[in-house]
Amino acid sequence: MLLINGHKADHISVFDRGFQYGDGLFETIEVLDGKPVFLSHHLQRLNAGCIKLKIPSPNIQLLNDEIKRVCQDEKSAVLKIIITRGIGGRGYRCPEKVEPTRAIGIFPYPDYPENYSNEGISTFFCKTRLGLNPELAGIKHLNRLEQIMARAEWNNPDVQEGIMLDINGNVIEGTMTNLFYVKNKTVYTAVMEYTGVAGIIRAILKQLMIKNKVEFVEHNFNMAVLLDADEVFVCNSIIGIWPVKQIENISFMAGSVTKQLQSWLSESKTCQTFYET
Amino acid sequence: MLLINGHKADHISVFDRGFQYGDGLFETIEVLDGKPVFLSHHLQRLNAGCIKLKIPSPNIQLLNDEIKRVCQDEKSAVLKIIITRGIGGRGYRCPEKVEPTRAIGIFPYPDYPENYSNEGISTFFCKTRLGLNPELAGIKHLNRLEQIMARAEWNNPDVQEGIMLDINGNVIEGTMTNLFYVKNKTVYTAVMEYTGVAGIIRAILKQLMIKNKVEFVEHNFNMAVLLDADEVFVCNSIIGIWPVKQIENISFMAGSVTKQLQSWLSESKTCQTFYET
Repeated sequence: MLLINGHKADHISVFDRGFQYGDGLFETIEVLDGKPVFLSHHLQRLNAGCIKLKIPSPNIQLLNDEIKRVCQDEKSAVLKIIITRGIGGRGYRCPEKVEPTRAIGIFPYPDYPENYSNEGISTFFCKTRLGLNPELAGIKHLNRLEQIMARAEWNNPDVQEGIMLDINGNVIEGTMTNLFYVKNKTVYTAVMEYTGVAGIIRAILKQLMIKNKVEFVEHNFNMAVLLDADEVFVCNSIIGIWPVKQIENISFMAGSVTKQLQSWLSESKTCQTFYET
Repeated sequence: MLLINGHKADHISVFDRGFQYGDGLFETIEVLDGKPVFLSHHLQRLNAGCIKLKIPSPNIQLLNDEIKRVCQDEKSAVLKIIITRGIGGRGYRCPEKVEPTRAIGIFPYPDYPENYSNEGISTFFCKTRLGLNPELAGIKHLNRLEQIMARAEWNNPDVQEGIMLDINGNVIEGTMTNLFYVKNKTVYTAVMEYTGVAGIIRAILKQLMIKNKVEFVEHNFNMAVLLDADEVFVCNSIIGIWPVKQIENISFMAGSVTKQLQSWLSESKTCQTFYET
């Protein structure tokens, strides 16, 4: 099912600023037994993104009703929410009265082999670099050409993710995931101040590590530091955590810290509070 | 009139990657007496953008026919062409068989006062900075949140353009224009290697300056250098050249070099070869 501003539809206006300029935001959310996982986190990030881009925040009650409508019959699926600045004229100037577009759709849950979670995935370093822009860093906006160019770098089904560096050579994230590494039981990930998407699972893992007193550091690091890690993993809202077993020709073990985080994440998924009004 | 893939329509699929990710390119072209000005330049840039983004280039004959169809009855208008990677699934991965979307529309020519061309415009420095990404620099792609954020910084009708710096403090361009300055009869503009849109009028001015032996330099420069200029002007395909008479509280004259370039540009517009097949 697909709802555009509350109505079943699969088309939007050519004049929608999402189409004209990528002028909007999105969220991708796992749906389990009719309920979107970590929904309140996603809606909070969506709202924060709207504030940053000066798009009027969607009415939360309306959005929640529409989300329920599309999710309720889904056992296992992916919910995608797109919010754009709505219809506008030609040119970058925002319309005087902005009426945002809400596009809410359900997609099949991807058919990932179980060994991605257990044994890990194979990765490589993408040639495409992430640009730097502190104003847009962290936001899950619709300007995603960098990720598209990076994802177009490989077709080999034995490679599951590409690792992206920024233009200064700092390791930032995967094309569709955030990336962490473990060294001497401390967990590290990239700062999201200049580029990158600050993922929901990334945020939840930070909370879990604080709660469970795992040493955690956000910093800048390069390829050599990553390749010297004890464990590496990637995460997002659909896959949870996947250990990285291979970066090009360097092998890693799905280690104990990664497995512990997988277990805590899984617990926190089942005992979460769904968004209710 | 609006043609989507050759058919009169004003809606596109929600699954179009233009809407999902800003995954495409656009051109904005002046139409005079039914003919698009500098069309071959625009189509060449569009084609170069497609090659860079690995989007199959549109069939030039088809595109040309559609452009003629929407332009032929227009005395003075703006033609906008959008090419996207077409419909795709969820996720950044490009569809195996890409069928690009062509959206070709006509808009009214903006009602700019004549004194913008004669006396010049008022401008200011935007707070929003341009991010750096050499892979996407110069391309007129659909990821335009930076320009949108910058254009949203002012509503004052007495200000016509905002000047954008990159994150390193180099002056790059206006929100919708390229920017030039003149110092001791030499013309300067920003390099487009790390950011910016390499405009068609910018390219034509370069040709005109070479032909007419005007000293011309592309380099990095900061606000202080710009404010010390003898003349400043901005250009794009719709406005041609506008002198800048004011940057915040600093005044400039619409000088002789700017006026000479306006005159050459105007001549080259009238004697251009339209794209014909």
